[in-house]
Amino acid sequence: MFVWPLRVYWEDTDGGGVVYHARYVHFFERARSEWLRSLGFHQLELQQQHDLVFAIRAMNLEFVAPARMDDALQVSVSLLAAGRASLRFVQHIHRQPDELIASATVYAACLTASSFKPRRIPAAMLQRIAEAVPATATENP
Amino acid sequence: MFVWPLRVYWEDTDGGGVVYHARYVHFFERARSEWLRSLGFHQLELQQQHDLVFAIRAMNLEFVAPARMDDALQVSVSLLAAGRASLRFVQHIHRQPDELIASATVYAACLTASSFKPRRIPAAMLQRIAEAVPATATENP
Amino acid sequence: MFVWPLRVYWEDTDGGGVVYHARYVHFFERARSEWLRSLGFHQLELQQQHDLVFAIRAMNLEFVAPARMDDALQVSVSLLAAGRASLRFVQHIHRQPDELIASATVYAACLTASSFKPRRIPAAMLQRIAEAVPATATENP
Amino acid sequence: MFVWPLRVYWEDTDGGGVVYHARYVHFFERARSEWLRSLGFHQLELQQQHDLVFAIRAMNLEFVAPARMDDALQVSVSLLAAGRASLRFVQHIHRQPDELIASATVYAACLTASSFKPRRIPAAMLQRIAEAVPATATENP
Repeated sequence: MFVWPLRVYWEDTDGGGVVYHARYVHFFERARSEWLRSLGFHQLELQQQHDLVFAIRAMNLEFVAPARMDDALQVSVSLLAAGRASLRFVQHIHRQPDELIASATVYAACLTASSFKPRRIPAAMLQRIAEAVPATATENP
Repeated sequence: MFVWPLRVYWEDTDGGGVVYHARYVHFFERARSEWLRSLGFHQLELQQQHDLVFAIRAMNLEFVAPARMDDALQVSVSLLAAGRASLRFVQHIHRQPDELIASATVYAACLTASSFKPRRIPAAMLQRIAEAVPATATENP
Repeated sequence: MFVWPLRVYWEDTDGGGVVYHARYVHFFERARSEWLRSLGFHQLELQQQHDLVFAIRAMNLEFVAPARMDDALQVSVSLLAAGRASLRFVQHIHRQPDELIASATVYAACLTASSFKPRRIPAAMLQRIAEAVPATATENP
Repeated sequence: MFVWPLRVYWEDTDGGGVVYHARYVHFFERARSEWLRSLGFHQLELQQQHDLVFAIRAMNLEFVAPARMDDALQVSVSLLAAGRASLRFVQHIHRQPDELIASATVYAACLTASSFKPRRIPAAMLQRIAEAVPATATENP
């Protein structure tokens, strides 16, 4: 499991005094971007040199407890399944190890960046992902 | 069904050339705010004079097709169920009447604004909502 | 003077209970986009068919009074000067006609979209802009 | 001079392929928040226990070069002047030590959080700030 720390700033909060719910969607994406980076993949390079982007097709979100200004959060990324053209994740945001803020399941599709049509994840990329996570996660979803 | 129009600006797009997925969560919220306003409820007033806020507890999101800069979108709000302390919605974003961009089911809880604890939706508010939507939607979810 | 109305939503506010200062920068940009649209220019078309984007080079911002959730704001756009490769604006955000929220002067450069290098504003575009605003504004800044 | 590192994500970019100009305003604010934290001040605590917030009154922004997805940026904070009720900063964003992306001068006013009226910066806070920066910066602006 990959974990990325981040801090809550004023920009993340709303007039209710807590983090605006859509900001958690940003936080989940930052952690997935850092997970990809930790595997050696840079998304601007994927887009410009390999005409590849990942697009989010579906998300299920649970907002469990409110985070607030100054909170130090931990965002996790667990790969549930890697298909030939898609990745599925489960992600959690915690404040303390035992204090869950939000959860998400995320379905990301691999697309040709210039046409937005589905394409296969390159074999080398899929293999790099498979090496990094338990074997059970890399079967076809 | 309530429909709110909005326009896509640069702020809504990302380097992939399409609307950033979290922005749709904002768009859904703008339409719910306008739906509440259309029923006569102003959220700042609800917060400051009635110590009441709605918080999103869960969302299921489907991103069907990408929207782009300059697109004119229509965001719908349909109440699925009104409980004593929560509202459930289904929402869609269309570009053309037959061109679906994104869908969401949204579970909103009524909270005491100062404590973030669940509270009942005031009876008058629930009645006003019930008058505005088909009777089947206002049973306990 | 061009004026664009907009509404403040939760997404625009922060934990201080007022609009987050960077959001006014968004509001100013929405109004400039609508001003361009009112003159017949669509920015996605300018980017994709004419390889042209406007980029903001400098802004001076004054935050005069706080706006809040639910506020109905009016954002103005006045062209100060149109040069061969740049436009300068002054913009204001009002809540009531006599209640100033924020002001900005904005310097926008015309760029080749694919290279981000400065380029001339097309003559037909400059002429269309000149027709729409007082002659004094369309001299070289 | 205080420097805070941050990473550019998709959320920060726009359809022009570069960081959306308003996002730099966020980046500047994150660095000021971390500067305050480095001096021992937590803004939620200041708001809730001392009824104190800082609000931005004015900013001058220069956007020098575009940043892009995946860029690692450094945001600096230099206090120019500390008055009895306000702080003035100059801030820069660099990609490489010699590659300037954006600059800002920022005027922040100290306010009573509950009324948004100007108030003095607490003497202990002003002293803590004075200890952390060159003496010339802590005179009345």
